[in-house]
Amino acid sequence: MSRESFYEISPADFFYRNKDLAGFSNPARAIYSAVRELVENSFDASEVYKYQPDIFVRINDADGESLEDLEGATVTTIKVADNGCGIPARHIPSAFGQVFYGSKYRLRQSRGTFGLGGTMAILYGQITTSSPVKVVSATSGKVAHEYEIMIDIRRNRPVILKHKTYRNESLWHGTIIEVKMEGDYKRATAKILEYFKQTAMVAPYANITFVDTRGRLYRFNQVTKEMPKPPTETKLHPYGSDVETIKRLMAMTPCKSMHSFMMEHFHKVGPIIAGNFLRAAGIPQKRKPRKLNNVEIVKLVKAMKRFPNFRPPSAECLSPLGENLLRAGIQKELKPEFISVKVRNPSVYSGFPFIAEVGLAYGGEVPKSGDIVLYRFANRIPLLYDEASDVSWKVVHSLMNWRNYHVDLHSTPLAVMVHVCSTKIPYRSVGKEFIAEIPEIEREILNGVRDAARELSGFLARRRSVEVEKKRLDVFGKFLPKIAEFSKKLAGREVTPDVKPLLRSVMKHGSEEKEGYEGTEGEAHKEPPESG
Amino acid sequence: MSRESFYEISPADFFYRNKDLAGFSNPARAIYSAVRELVENSFDASEVYKYQPDIFVRINDADGESLEDLEGATVTTIKVADNGCGIPARHIPSAFGQVFYGSKYRLRQSRGTFGLGGTMAILYGQITTSSPVKVVSATSGKVAHEYEIMIDIRRNRPVILKHKTYRNESLWHGTIIEVKMEGDYKRATAKILEYFKQTAMVAPYANITFVDTRGRLYRFNQVTKEMPKPPTETKLHPYGSDVETIKRLMAMTPCKSMHSFMMEHFHKVGPIIAGNFLRAAGIPQKRKPRKLNNVEIVKLVKAMKRFPNFRPPSAECLSPLGENLLRAGIQKELKPEFISVKVRNPSVYSGFPFIAEVGLAYGGEVPKSGDIVLYRFANRIPLLYDEASDVSWKVVHSLMNWRNYHVDLHSTPLAVMVHVCSTKIPYRSVGKEFIAEIPEIEREILNGVRDAARELSGFLARRRSVEVEKKRLDVFGKFLPKIAEFSKKLAGREVTPDVKPLLRSVMKHGSEEKEGYEGTEGEAHKEPPESG
Repeated sequence: MSRESFYEISPADFFYRNKDLAGFSNPARAIYSAVRELVENSFDASEVYKYQPDIFVRINDADGESLEDLEGATVTTIKVADNGCGIPARHIPSAFGQVFYGSKYRLRQSRGTFGLGGTMAILYGQITTSSPVKVVSATSGKVAHEYEIMIDIRRNRPVILKHKTYRNESLWHGTIIEVKMEGDYKRATAKILEYFKQTAMVAPYANITFVDTRGRLYRFNQVTKEMPKPPTETKLHPYGSDVETIKRLMAMTPCKSMHSFMMEHFHKVGPIIAGNFLRAAGIPQKRKPRKLNNVEIVKLVKAMKRFPNFRPPSAECLSPLGENLLRAGIQKELKPEFISVKVRNPSVYSGFPFIAEVGLAYGGEVPKSGDIVLYRFANRIPLLYDEASDVSWKVVHSLMNWRNYHVDLHSTPLAVMVHVCSTKIPYRSVGKEFIAEIPEIEREILNGVRDAARELSGFLARRRSVEVEKKRLDVFGKFLPKIAEFSKKLAGREVTPDVKPLLRSVMKHGSEEKEGYEGTEGEAHKEPPESG
Repeated sequence: MSRESFYEISPADFFYRNKDLAGFSNPARAIYSAVRELVENSFDASEVYKYQPDIFVRINDADGESLEDLEGATVTTIKVADNGCGIPARHIPSAFGQVFYGSKYRLRQSRGTFGLGGTMAILYGQITTSSPVKVVSATSGKVAHEYEIMIDIRRNRPVILKHKTYRNESLWHGTIIEVKMEGDYKRATAKILEYFKQTAMVAPYANITFVDTRGRLYRFNQVTKEMPKPPTETKLHPYGSDVETIKRLMAMTPCKSMHSFMMEHFHKVGPIIAGNFLRAAGIPQKRKPRKLNNVEIVKLVKAMKRFPNFRPPSAECLSPLGENLLRAGIQKELKPEFISVKVRNPSVYSGFPFIAEVGLAYGGEVPKSGDIVLYRFANRIPLLYDEASDVSWKVVHSLMNWRNYHVDLHSTPLAVMVHVCSTKIPYRSVGKEFIAEIPEIEREILNGVRDAARELSGFLARRRSVEVEKKRLDVFGKFLPKIAEFSKKLAGREVTPDVKPLLRSVMKHGSEEKEGYEGTEGEAHKEPPESG
């Protein structure tokens, strides 16, 4: 007989045992991940109701416990306060004290996706300091709730230590969270500041205040009142369905016929398409959804993946950054000589709509590291770790043939910024650090980078030819007066001929760089780009 | 009021929604992951009882359903049969039909760690083909069990469709699994074969038979009967404990005093160390473990991380490959001109013991790609994806300064093999593809690579000096006879003087490469290596 012992563990227990998976490997990484997850929850809670985000973050050493331990970690308190929609009181304990409990399991563009990050921060705090989390929240009703919660890790359930209510006369809405954990702020400082900087860059409509352990205050001010439109939920596209989906829908649908079932539960399926599809799939339109057997379900799903006439998913539910914001963000950050931004048309993978946005910057403050500086964003979250595993890295480093664009990577200071937004970002790790190499996403990013590179190539060629022209003119400018002088003497004339009209006539290009010359607006040098 | 809806999802539901996380992104990747997870379970089931693994894997197109769909995926059947210890009948349904249920949640070196992979393969099969998994297993008792199981994804519970028993007169033990799923074998072929090849390389005591969709048979024969010693379970080292651990132990311990509690539940803690530690921690030895309050628990954990006199974890529970196996594996695979292997001493991170083993190969069949070829293994699993996020990649590509070892990466065909074994491999993704950058592990790998590189440096220097010497001798060999001839004529002698003794006297090095010369065994050229 086997002496192996088998048992079940709860999801909280699983992530407790495997903290590395969720980005809580060590006190430095943990403090970064905690700040990030809590701030992203705050953003989601604000944007969903178009509240202008006003987020306050404070990290400090817990009173009297600031002794450094062996690894330079101290007990720190992280406080994050927002003016978001708040959490209904009955959901507060589970939202923070239970893994896989949340409001993010929907087809909607949001920063959070897994319903895990906030709880992980609290779990990490609990196992390192044995302290509960403190949550205050109000949903603009007349009552605000305060909870102190710990997690029963084995059972994956919240344990409520304290529950108080307050009168909320001002109808304040928002959430304040305070969690105590072992953290190494010193080692995490650079990443945390970079995170805030990049977050502010793509959310210029937000106010972010950050006070660190030494009391230094970082303030990222709102620069526009214009909010992105709130994310909306979509139905599933037929291409994204599978057997499990159909079974779930069958179990809860009120529809009496397959025809109405298709229209009710799937994205962009109207009466005509539903009819055509069911005919192609060989399933009677009037058949009751609940009566489908296993073989028919498989047939239905297969037909869904093959039917060519479904309309593509609409991207109305997506909220891309847009050209202006991308450009402004790059401008502010890098002050480059040249920027090109490309917002791709909406596209789709496995039934999920997505949009890829690409920015390319050259010169200015772009570091001349000999390597491309890559900024990655997904649903407005900056991704700072594991760059080399990201689909964008692959595009920039192995799919792009920069030489085709006359870009020598060793000498060209180049930055690439990629933003992907989708109702479902295909992250490859629970820590949300990099995007999987989905062929459709890869292609969109690649095409965006190529378009931008083509413009850069033109810019660089123009600049090169301007330089060549300048040299040529310098030569004329230097020698023509001497020749004129010489000719004057030779001819025995009194007056030296004016060389200016001559100089002007040899100029091929006008250029904004040479204000001294009154050049004619020459044709911009055009170099036909090669496709990579 | 907030209109956000909150709900809980089961772990099976979570991974169903986020298949990318576990390596089931698309039909090609899914078939690779499924094969891998099932084969690894088979290995674990064999090695734990020192059964010589005999593993049979067959992938074929399911009867009559081999039509290619839009993405080149077909319905395939994967069958994996092993002679392992089998699974007790009462555990079969949950072991295969439930996420986070298994026998791997222990401090023991094993390939599986998450209790997730096998179930994911079945879940993926179910959602793409709506078919149950078929499992036959026996634990060398008189009965073998056959189950057909599906997963209730919402509830994370197995649904038993069929259960039959057979008489098992031969006392066979093992498990046979057959799962039907949408897979793209064509696109996965290369990775799957590579996986088998590398697996056989580090498990030369196993027989592996693989039959693919076209009936091609790949056979990896056992080349040694010598099995690694079975993995044993260890207690937790005090350095690896946290508040949650202590609370769990307190809840179940039979110990009446903290002194016996320390000895009973922690690795390498004897009566003297337990006494010294409790004194240092300021906790009375006779105190009842169950009576510890929150403050004392935190104090205890802090003291555990700081107490300097715990003994280091023993590596007895680990099963490294060893020098011979490493060398043989590399030799067979790459037939290099030079090999250096280094097995590091056991080390420890966060209380978990680990051993890093490193091999370095030069020349022979090592591809001259201008880049280092990296083979990565963790607890005898080859890791084939996400190389650039792995700690070994960082060591080899950014921490090593190869120039210090006179290695020019552009012209030197170099392969590095790294094996890390531990009771807990700190994977960064649920798909088990890369190891986190834990400082201790990084350091051990780096030191191993440096040691090996030092030997390589010596070898290359010797070879270079042999080449220089050969050129020098060639010069002498070419001109001395002419000088001799000339001298003869000049002196008017009849006999040309013999130049051989002269040639011999100018030779500095003996070399195996110059068999024609009877060189004296010169001192081997020694070049003091610089530490990087």
